[in-house]
Amino acid sequence: MSVALGELAVRFGCELRGDPEVRIGSVAPLGSAGPGSLSFLSNPKLSSQLAQTRASAVVLDAGTAASSPAPVLISTNPHALFARIASVLYPEPPPRPGIHPSAVVDPEASIDASSEVGAHALIGPGTVIGPRCTIGPACLIGAQVRIGPDCRLFARVTLGERVQLGARVLIHPGAVLGADGFGYARDGVRWLKVPQIGAVIVGDDVEIGANTTIDRGAIDDTLIAEGVKLDNQIQIGHNVQIGAHTAIAGCTGVSGSTRIGARCMIAGACGIAGHLVICDDVVITGFAMVSGSISKPGVYSSGIPIEPMRRWKRVVSRLKLLADRDPPPGEAEEEQDDD
Amino acid sequence: MSVALGELAVRFGCELRGDPEVRIGSVAPLGSAGPGSLSFLSNPKLSSQLAQTRASAVVLDAGTAASSPAPVLISTNPHALFARIASVLYPEPPPRPGIHPSAVVDPEASIDASSEVGAHALIGPGTVIGPRCTIGPACLIGAQVRIGPDCRLFARVTLGERVQLGARVLIHPGAVLGADGFGYARDGVRWLKVPQIGAVIVGDDVEIGANTTIDRGAIDDTLIAEGVKLDNQIQIGHNVQIGAHTAIAGCTGVSGSTRIGARCMIAGACGIAGHLVICDDVVITGFAMVSGSISKPGVYSSGIPIEPMRRWKRVVSRLKLLADRDPPPGEAEEEQDDD
Amino acid sequence: MSVALGELAVRFGCELRGDPEVRIGSVAPLGSAGPGSLSFLSNPKLSSQLAQTRASAVVLDAGTAASSPAPVLISTNPHALFARIASVLYPEPPPRPGIHPSAVVDPEASIDASSEVGAHALIGPGTVIGPRCTIGPACLIGAQVRIGPDCRLFARVTLGERVQLGARVLIHPGAVLGADGFGYARDGVRWLKVPQIGAVIVGDDVEIGANTTIDRGAIDDTLIAEGVKLDNQIQIGHNVQIGAHTAIAGCTGVSGSTRIGARCMIAGACGIAGHLVICDDVVITGFAMVSGSISKPGVYSSGIPIEPMRRWKRVVSRLKLLADRDPPPGEAEEEQDDD
Repeated sequence: MSVALGELAVRFGCELRGDPEVRIGSVAPLGSAGPGSLSFLSNPKLSSQLAQTRASAVVLDAGTAASSPAPVLISTNPHALFARIASVLYPEPPPRPGIHPSAVVDPEASIDASSEVGAHALIGPGTVIGPRCTIGPACLIGAQVRIGPDCRLFARVTLGERVQLGARVLIHPGAVLGADGFGYARDGVRWLKVPQIGAVIVGDDVEIGANTTIDRGAIDDTLIAEGVKLDNQIQIGHNVQIGAHTAIAGCTGVSGSTRIGARCMIAGACGIAGHLVICDDVVITGFAMVSGSISKPGVYSSGIPIEPMRRWKRVVSRLKLLADRDPPPGEAEEEQDDD
Repeated sequence: MSVALGELAVRFGCELRGDPEVRIGSVAPLGSAGPGSLSFLSNPKLSSQLAQTRASAVVLDAGTAASSPAPVLISTNPHALFARIASVLYPEPPPRPGIHPSAVVDPEASIDASSEVGAHALIGPGTVIGPRCTIGPACLIGAQVRIGPDCRLFARVTLGERVQLGARVLIHPGAVLGADGFGYARDGVRWLKVPQIGAVIVGDDVEIGANTTIDRGAIDDTLIAEGVKLDNQIQIGHNVQIGAHTAIAGCTGVSGSTRIGARCMIAGACGIAGHLVICDDVVITGFAMVSGSISKPGVYSSGIPIEPMRRWKRVVSRLKLLADRDPPPGEAEEEQDDD
Repeated sequence: MSVALGELAVRFGCELRGDPEVRIGSVAPLGSAGPGSLSFLSNPKLSSQLAQTRASAVVLDAGTAASSPAPVLISTNPHALFARIASVLYPEPPPRPGIHPSAVVDPEASIDASSEVGAHALIGPGTVIGPRCTIGPACLIGAQVRIGPDCRLFARVTLGERVQLGARVLIHPGAVLGADGFGYARDGVRWLKVPQIGAVIVGDDVEIGANTTIDRGAIDDTLIAEGVKLDNQIQIGHNVQIGAHTAIAGCTGVSGSTRIGARCMIAGACGIAGHLVICDDVVITGFAMVSGSISKPGVYSSGIPIEPMRRWKRVVSRLKLLADRDPPPGEAEEEQDDD
């Protein structure tokens, strides 16, 4: 697969500075790109690499275009243009229609003839799989699941009963959607399981990372809106709602019944408590402890970064001494009711 | 499936205020319940919803019963009664006895005739599976495993060699019990693997969440006592012991050889160091750092909740300034030996 | 399997104090060891157990050897010697050469005749598996993967396309190597997927824990050097590099493009931000927040350990009060540019 710069400029409506006949067959970082490769400036700190790149073309914004020794495709959003061109050069393989003979498909399942079901997959009764889907090897699709068009479940994805996926949903290996939530009633010293009967509803254009888990709702459903991107090893509790185009990085956990707004960006390894409401357009930095609701858009952080161990021990001991001193004026009352 | 309120009152020994002939076929939240649905007041903040509910019946305690427009089942523990009724309305499907033809069962395994083994499951030599178990599709059960009566492994559960499960154990997809613990000896710059030869022993009525991992013991066994509830994506290191009826929420990690007592409640995303002893009846709030043993029951917490990023940066810088000041009187000596 | 102490002393070049004819058939902790068992002093605190052990032999250093009631194998590194002897007593089962009839092997894959492919495994086109490998049941090996000699994939391991493993690599169930990284370009409110085309390259003698995920590189590759040990449920982002003999404990996440040096020891549940450089020989204690690069070897820590909830609330409120006071002299300027 290779494509001429001129074609790319027309296809994506961008300005080209340089020879339209130059052909691009791959993408590569500025520093290691060679003939036939397209690169882009991912970080202004790398501008010295730009001056020396051997790439056949570079995607840049107008402000940096003059610094390039190679032909330039100019965009106000170079990263997005680069992503679009890379998708042309490295297309997802289309489904190979048909059902692998080792797959086990319930006679009451309905699978569009244009879709692929891989080896050792299992499709439950009443399940409907739309057109042009790839259900990779060893996927387990439960009963009465709905999968929209053009979805790709790479391999070994588990969808519990009644999970619904919109169009163009991508799910990576080991993800489990629709397992029971963590719902118990106390009964003396014992825990009594509360049946979990809700579903998981996933909108269009959602991507879900490897070994991420999204529990089914307790009674109502767990909702993942369109365009949401979830990285690997994320845990989403029962009845959580995540708004459109929110992105969450790896290892973050969201406890049950929390509602996260649209267009939020939540970094990795955060812990988000249950029953919170986080409004639209919130950014949360990495390793943050979110124990209360957020009603105002903005950037939120917590956590004390590492220090050499000896100094950190001093920080901790000084901090704890603070708590032992007399309260400052006005604080005493607040403390009366703190537990 | 539907059941009359009068039957429920008799079956669960609770008081009914209202028409015993009213039939219940489903459960629903107060706000969205309709005819035929049972609801309950999960949170006192929702009492305004109670006044307007269209549910056919509500489970309440005696103090709130008068506020209900619908018939009421009265319990001192409404949540537990609700859970019991929901289990009647939404029973777990019973096993369909037999072994799917695509399963691979070792000739030296013993599977009770009342149990089900799903598609693409694998059962190792010397393994014994008790009565009325459901071994879901794609479960991998190693050699010499013991599974008690009435267990349900939903799908894609991995049990390593010699794992033992008690009765009525539930395990969700992606859980791995009995993988090797993280045990190495230093050998110059290299790490030398220490063979991991212990087992994982799980008591009765334990539930284990999706993608949770419980390592086999190094030499002795890893022990999960009866009634323990583990949420998704929990990591339990080798030789850990967890006492009866302790519940741990998602994403918490417990390092090797730590012993957690009975009836503890540990919230999500906590990090618990190794070789600790945590006594019975300890509650640990979410995202807590547990680096020392706990010998007294109670509620323990750590972590600094998020703030707007600018203010958080100020908190961090002020905190670190504290560490640079002269130590308060009496602290100097303690610091002499801190590393 | 049993072996005489004299044989072990010769084989491992260590001093024996006691009868060389005594035979050892198992390993056990000091406190529960009996006849035929070998033990070692894992922790100086257990020296009272040493005096009373019923083990048939103990591995000790010269300084503690005199305290043993049983024969002693003496080593300057007792833990390593113990690990070596345990590996003799509990050898890994060798592969049983051949391909299980339920496995699905692409005709263009090449599998050494001395290797084993388990039930329901899948091997993709162009993949080459070296000699004496065990590819356990339900492993999914993608296209054009390279697996070196003597590797063992226990069960249910997923390797995406073009993953490369060196020699003697061990991988536990549920691990996913080579899924797409979390790479998107902003495009208005939407996220545009950036094709992930790099590989995961794993060196010799690496061990990877259950349900750990290692993403493929975005353009370049993700690199795990020889001798690295990764525990369970670790997340390694795209383009991360981990240096030789570094060990990382469970639940730690490493964000994209971070480079970790050689011989580091990183404890569990740490959050390591992206695009950092961590030099060789760094130790990071558990539950640490690593948001900046580290250029000097040493021990680093963060986090405030738990306290009783009431006292912790006081710590948090005092800490936040600090931030509200006037800045100390000299700090004001620094704050001008903090966002």
